[in-house]
Amino acid sequence: MNDSLRGRAAPEAIPHNPYARMRMNAIEIIAKKRDGQTLTREEINDFVQGFVRGDVPDYQVAAWLMAVFLRGMSYQETADLTLAIVNSGDRLDLSGIAPFVVDKHSSGGVGDKTTLVVAPIVAACGLPVAKMSGRALGFTGGTLDKLESIRGFRADLTTEEFLAQVREHGIVVSGQSKDLAPADGKLYALRDVTATVDSIPLIAASIMSKKIASGANGIVLDVKVGRGAFMETEERALELAQTMVRIGRSLGRRVTAVLSDMNQPLGLAVGNAVEVREAIDTLNGRGPADFLQHCLTIAGQMVLLAGRAKDEHEARELLLHQLHSGAGLAKFKEMVAAQGGDTAYVDDPDRLPKARIVEPLPAPQSGYIAAIDARQVGLTAALLGAGRQKKGDPVDYAVGIVLAHKVGDYVKSGEPLLTIHANAADKLRQAQLRLREAIRFSDAPPQPYPLIHRILRDTDVA
Amino acid sequence: MNDSLRGRAAPEAIPHNPYARMRMNAIEIIAKKRDGQTLTREEINDFVQGFVRGDVPDYQVAAWLMAVFLRGMSYQETADLTLAIVNSGDRLDLSGIAPFVVDKHSSGGVGDKTTLVVAPIVAACGLPVAKMSGRALGFTGGTLDKLESIRGFRADLTTEEFLAQVREHGIVVSGQSKDLAPADGKLYALRDVTATVDSIPLIAASIMSKKIASGANGIVLDVKVGRGAFMETEERALELAQTMVRIGRSLGRRVTAVLSDMNQPLGLAVGNAVEVREAIDTLNGRGPADFLQHCLTIAGQMVLLAGRAKDEHEARELLLHQLHSGAGLAKFKEMVAAQGGDTAYVDDPDRLPKARIVEPLPAPQSGYIAAIDARQVGLTAALLGAGRQKKGDPVDYAVGIVLAHKVGDYVKSGEPLLTIHANAADKLRQAQLRLREAIRFSDAPPQPYPLIHRILRDTDVA
Repeated sequence: MNDSLRGRAAPEAIPHNPYARMRMNAIEIIAKKRDGQTLTREEINDFVQGFVRGDVPDYQVAAWLMAVFLRGMSYQETADLTLAIVNSGDRLDLSGIAPFVVDKHSSGGVGDKTTLVVAPIVAACGLPVAKMSGRALGFTGGTLDKLESIRGFRADLTTEEFLAQVREHGIVVSGQSKDLAPADGKLYALRDVTATVDSIPLIAASIMSKKIASGANGIVLDVKVGRGAFMETEERALELAQTMVRIGRSLGRRVTAVLSDMNQPLGLAVGNAVEVREAIDTLNGRGPADFLQHCLTIAGQMVLLAGRAKDEHEARELLLHQLHSGAGLAKFKEMVAAQGGDTAYVDDPDRLPKARIVEPLPAPQSGYIAAIDARQVGLTAALLGAGRQKKGDPVDYAVGIVLAHKVGDYVKSGEPLLTIHANAADKLRQAQLRLREAIRFSDAPPQPYPLIHRILRDTDVA
Repeated sequence: MNDSLRGRAAPEAIPHNPYARMRMNAIEIIAKKRDGQTLTREEINDFVQGFVRGDVPDYQVAAWLMAVFLRGMSYQETADLTLAIVNSGDRLDLSGIAPFVVDKHSSGGVGDKTTLVVAPIVAACGLPVAKMSGRALGFTGGTLDKLESIRGFRADLTTEEFLAQVREHGIVVSGQSKDLAPADGKLYALRDVTATVDSIPLIAASIMSKKIASGANGIVLDVKVGRGAFMETEERALELAQTMVRIGRSLGRRVTAVLSDMNQPLGLAVGNAVEVREAIDTLNGRGPADFLQHCLTIAGQMVLLAGRAKDEHEARELLLHQLHSGAGLAKFKEMVAAQGGDTAYVDDPDRLPKARIVEPLPAPQSGYIAAIDARQVGLTAALLGAGRQKKGDPVDYAVGIVLAHKVGDYVKSGEPLLTIHANAADKLRQAQLRLREAIRFSDAPPQPYPLIHRILRDTDVA
């Protein structure tokens, strides 16, 4: 057989077999993207729905994903892909709940317990928050795992329960419904095994499709930048943010992206119970300064998107009032109770799961802390058992790491840098080795990281 | 779930599960090629053997093929891929048959009955020819289908029969053994449906792996250039030729590539029985001039590779002697007989299958023939039934097209341009319409096509 000719022949070969035509169309769509051409909304939608139906096989989608990875997608194509993924399933209709419902999404990080504080203080302003969250994987934690360290907390609400709770309590944080954007899960599973995860249009469409399908009118995207983030450079983070903001605008949503720092962990606690405790402390007005500022920024943008404040200053005042009045904490307890959790855990965080071994890590030298590698800290927390190596693994709520210092602090040799919460001696030792490597010192005070790199509003993009 | 983080996490996620490690390696190999890095021989071999064993699933191979398509491969990587495909199956050992066995391969064309003449005249020189051929697909014909228009001819020899015949008769033309280079068929099937056919390293490795596995010491590659070829430009054809010649050299084979013209059909006949008749006519010294010259070039390079002549002139004299003495025709009959064919068909080509309708197509105007679009002629022959739209379709041996004129000829309005051999009136009409479109006229004599664009020897490449 002449290899060279079989291929050329194919597109002209089977014009009247409807099944073959379908496959031919898939081939044409792959070839078009392979050649760097722009796909139409219809082509993208046909391809995605064909994949979900099983008419377009995974190997064709895999080739297409690689072509998208290497050739990219225009903003319009990315919005069309987002819409196609949304169209693969149900959409939540939140219009009966309030005129404007807000949501937030974090691109993921280490010590990122933001939702636990932001959702209650925003909801306490009277602005309904309907949030679908995720679970820990790799070096990152997951909001649902953290919440589940509160005894009885249910993160697997049905759609009916989800809607009823946001209607009744104005706040809900639960797992992603399988009926929303099912194409996303299928596409992600394939990207994960074909080296096509790290593509801005594919990431943007994945995130935005879930947010669009979840029904919120306004979405604040917390795009992490740095060593402990998927986007290590500000340039890539900005590109992702711009893409998502444009998608939101072209699909009729108000979107603001906040580029926030993830070179070192956010706040001090990294784990599950330890992060819940830190979130409760923050709602009690005793949280770490960086984490509080971060929460006020994200929550402030949510309040602004909904038109509940005229500027950032007013938004901040409104939110600080929810914190200081205890309204935020009360809303958090209301959510915990509504989702079956034991609120005694909120009143007394000492009830949260505790590790058998709690051991400080002394500073090996005196000096300024120049870096705390967020990725290494996240991986170490996962190694201790706080995270997952793969989907479905159990997590240990008790274990984790609590920093005593952050970048820029001066420490003396022997002083505790952090505390390791472990349930096994061998894991403790591995964690000690890893964490010593993760922290760097300098003689002079280091250049501080900005907490917020940039805020991008939908009115900012051309 | 944070989309962005799952992916980053993956490569670090499952270090101790051996199955997962296997998959991780596949992901790393895909990612390396995706990023334009060079794969090692071991990586390429692991990936290909993993695919053949079923350990690397087709979706991973599909993503990898697209990465190869868009990122390319070095000569070394292409040779390593060729070797990996060869290693997926058996190798024929022809060393017991003769010190030097030659083979030829055409990249496929329209009216390309070259093997039917070249194999016997080379074998008649005492140089064993062991050739595995292909079947028609799309716009191209297949040597095996042509030979099967001779009653009884068997193109499906076993490996034992193949070896016995070349040992006994010094000539054999049969189908590709399924035991040789099985990875090629699997890879091709996937390329065909993932828009990754038209990649020079993939084409080169596909062709060369089959040739290497077939055991010949010397290989002449007939790389077609033009409208009726897979490589439409001389630049692409040269790139393919250079790649294949280099692969051959790095795997210890003597290889010469002939870039030959395929803008118009080769010779006059396009079909199965009509091409066999033209080949027999040529062996009888009455073939079309262009086809004869082409055959003498290809055969001459085979004779030169084997060291049976000191230069092209001597090779040509030797081959013309086989033609004029009748030794070539005798060898052809010997092969037909050995493979179960009825040699009465060779003695009297009128016995070959005949179409019910044989109708000339008159010239619509007077003028010089400026172009006869080989691709359109090939597609039209396939439409008449001479070819296949997809693998496994039956072919009609009787139908086809026989040109009366070639590019550069002057014709008068109404004079026959060609004869259509059809078995159905509707197909005849469709063929007439298509063929009228395929032929262009000019008032002035057109620039003639070169028959041979270039000859590339392994001593020519750096």
